[in-house]
Amino acid sequence: MPADKETVKALAQAARKAARPLAHAPTAQKDKALREMAHALRAAQEDILAANAQDLAAAKADDKNTAFLDRLALDAQRLEKVALALEEVASLPDPIGEVVETWRRPNGLKVEKVRLPLGVVLMIYESRPNVTADAAALCLKSGNAVILRGGSEAARSNHAIARALHAGLAKAGLPEDAIQLVPTTDRAALLELIKLEGLIDLCIPRGGEGLIRFVAENARVPVVKHYQGVCHVYVHASAPLEMAEAIILNAKASRPGVCNAAECLLIDRGIAEQALPRLGKALTAAGVELRGCPTTVSLLARCDVPVKAAMPEDYGHEFLEKILAVRVVRDLDQALEHIQAYGSEHTEAIVTSDVFAAERFTREVVASGVMVNASTRFNDGGELGLGAEIGISTSRLHAFGPMGLRELTAQKYVVHGEGQVR
Amino acid sequence: MPADKETVKALAQAARKAARPLAHAPTAQKDKALREMAHALRAAQEDILAANAQDLAAAKADDKNTAFLDRLALDAQRLEKVALALEEVASLPDPIGEVVETWRRPNGLKVEKVRLPLGVVLMIYESRPNVTADAAALCLKSGNAVILRGGSEAARSNHAIARALHAGLAKAGLPEDAIQLVPTTDRAALLELIKLEGLIDLCIPRGGEGLIRFVAENARVPVVKHYQGVCHVYVHASAPLEMAEAIILNAKASRPGVCNAAECLLIDRGIAEQALPRLGKALTAAGVELRGCPTTVSLLARCDVPVKAAMPEDYGHEFLEKILAVRVVRDLDQALEHIQAYGSEHTEAIVTSDVFAAERFTREVVASGVMVNASTRFNDGGELGLGAEIGISTSRLHAFGPMGLRELTAQKYVVHGEGQVR
Repeated sequence: MPADKETVKALAQAARKAARPLAHAPTAQKDKALREMAHALRAAQEDILAANAQDLAAAKADDKNTAFLDRLALDAQRLEKVALALEEVASLPDPIGEVVETWRRPNGLKVEKVRLPLGVVLMIYESRPNVTADAAALCLKSGNAVILRGGSEAARSNHAIARALHAGLAKAGLPEDAIQLVPTTDRAALLELIKLEGLIDLCIPRGGEGLIRFVAENARVPVVKHYQGVCHVYVHASAPLEMAEAIILNAKASRPGVCNAAECLLIDRGIAEQALPRLGKALTAAGVELRGCPTTVSLLARCDVPVKAAMPEDYGHEFLEKILAVRVVRDLDQALEHIQAYGSEHTEAIVTSDVFAAERFTREVVASGVMVNASTRFNDGGELGLGAEIGISTSRLHAFGPMGLRELTAQKYVVHGEGQVR
Repeated sequence: MPADKETVKALAQAARKAARPLAHAPTAQKDKALREMAHALRAAQEDILAANAQDLAAAKADDKNTAFLDRLALDAQRLEKVALALEEVASLPDPIGEVVETWRRPNGLKVEKVRLPLGVVLMIYESRPNVTADAAALCLKSGNAVILRGGSEAARSNHAIARALHAGLAKAGLPEDAIQLVPTTDRAALLELIKLEGLIDLCIPRGGEGLIRFVAENARVPVVKHYQGVCHVYVHASAPLEMAEAIILNAKASRPGVCNAAECLLIDRGIAEQALPRLGKALTAAGVELRGCPTTVSLLARCDVPVKAAMPEDYGHEFLEKILAVRVVRDLDQALEHIQAYGSEHTEAIVTSDVFAAERFTREVVASGVMVNASTRFNDGGELGLGAEIGISTSRLHAFGPMGLRELTAQKYVVHGEGQVR
């Protein structure tokens, strides 16, 4: 298929048209579509896995690394998880039509704030084929048409999955154009897409920083950015040591490759001598490489915990592996300064037994998730109770943090009167 | 002063720096600043009016029209209103720190959604000098630093007002850099400003469509657009005639130059013969020129109500004066189609006694304000009970409709645990 301007524009126009009936489709109809999609995915297992095998073979031939191949790979179990996720979205409450707030004015007018869809969402992602179904499900449930632009390496898998999604829409009597898979993955077509102001209401790029920066710098449509997570755990002087150990271990080592993993441990001078050896040993035992400030290095060297000297660039760096920067700070003030200077407004945690320290930390830290005595890993749609998430926004506008169904909606004022005039 | 890149960037950097302490300044301190500003404005009345007189003289010499001069003009009474508006903002509840929602997770975590400021707001406006104080007050109260870029014709007035605002900040011990007046009004400097991603969190352009389009097309910072209001009043077949008359008269003629004024009357075929003569006479008596569809023209001609034939371009047009397009529609479906095709998603109204028609209208119409049996003129921050407004957004993202203090905030997740890990 030609990847020219007209193709991409026609696709966005079709999405816009399909968004209209979808915006006020009954919940039962949307849920039926989601369940039919799950059914169609299971029925098409053979085709989807065959397509995925072709994608994988091509990626291997292209010398992609193991992590990449793992993100790309589907098997019967993973596909079942994708189908279950569709059914889970069907079981979530419908955000559309929700009356968020209501009040009465002195002149008798009743004012309601009511949720409505954004319209057309453009989802740009890389190699994970499950995103095709996950993003489509969240957009459908929230009444939005979606344009899916996945990575070229997953193109065959994505097409096979999209066929099942379209079958689900058709069975529920909803327009198939509500889910559009961009038939090309070239950059020129992407560039064209992100300039379609008036046809696309929101663009969500998910993937490496290069992709996100390309989208942010070239888009004319609104973008909710999902940049990196440079998350800190600050161990306050009053922190219970056992809790500090459990939290930093979980935050750093439970899944180092995700954006809500910790990248830097800040430890208060008042507790460093006592805490650092214990935390250092536990982290080292979990396979974590430590890169410390001079004080950290000297404290750890004394008790034979391996540590490297941190370079300036180790602070503010998203390692995404078992490496942790460590810095001893003077006090809460210096911890806050460090977080402001090096954090990415994603997730920040304090471990403390001091209620005043907790209060100041939660008030002053600017991040989408601020954790008190809990792991940074909890900044996640599922863990916070939003249901599934379409991403984690690190921009403050519109949505900040995990984006679930509600974050895919807008709100309008509905005013009921009995003839009032001004 | 040189309007080069560095000047504008330095100004934005200073705003960014001032935004930090402002973000968690106590409510009492912000309110003190607002009251001191009002005091300083009153004390500087002579200087401000002298500066305004110079602006007015220059605008007159430049052959600006009466409406323009009226927007620009200040007098003692108008200045007192500006001061009172500052005091009113001081009396509004502080949105920052507000816990919007709170819930507990099965693992015991307590999750809160807490309001925080957006950061730095860039306000771009034209000739009204009162916006300088109004926008600064709303941004200050919501903990945001603000960069004010007013029109060149009001430059002297804006500077005189800004001096009073700075005096108020200083008296309350807040950084004067929190309110920045751009010292130049040339387009190159504006172009530079709206590209300062990372330094400016939100740009709000208010003014003519040319200005808004220029900003929307060139900005790299997020923009909440305030486009035109092409508002309709749909008189349903079941509408009480007296109510329909009162609402369309108020919506069209009470203040035709504002964005929530009606531009088009849609009248149901089922009531047109009975209603049109009455509505036509009332509107004509109020000085409104009618431009009707063929059915409208023939119905009005019968009873000697003056009416012109509507041209295609009269539909979807924002007249901003006493001109009203009129169309007889088949039914609610055609009214909804017309609004979708010609409306600007600003404000739409239905007059009806039929609860099912009201329900469908409120569900299906996409507009920031949907009115049932009330004038379109109620889509206004003050009228809806938001307090003062900084503008009315016609984009769905982040804020849709009147933007008050809350719409100048973001929300972060604050999570309280007792050592929970994943």
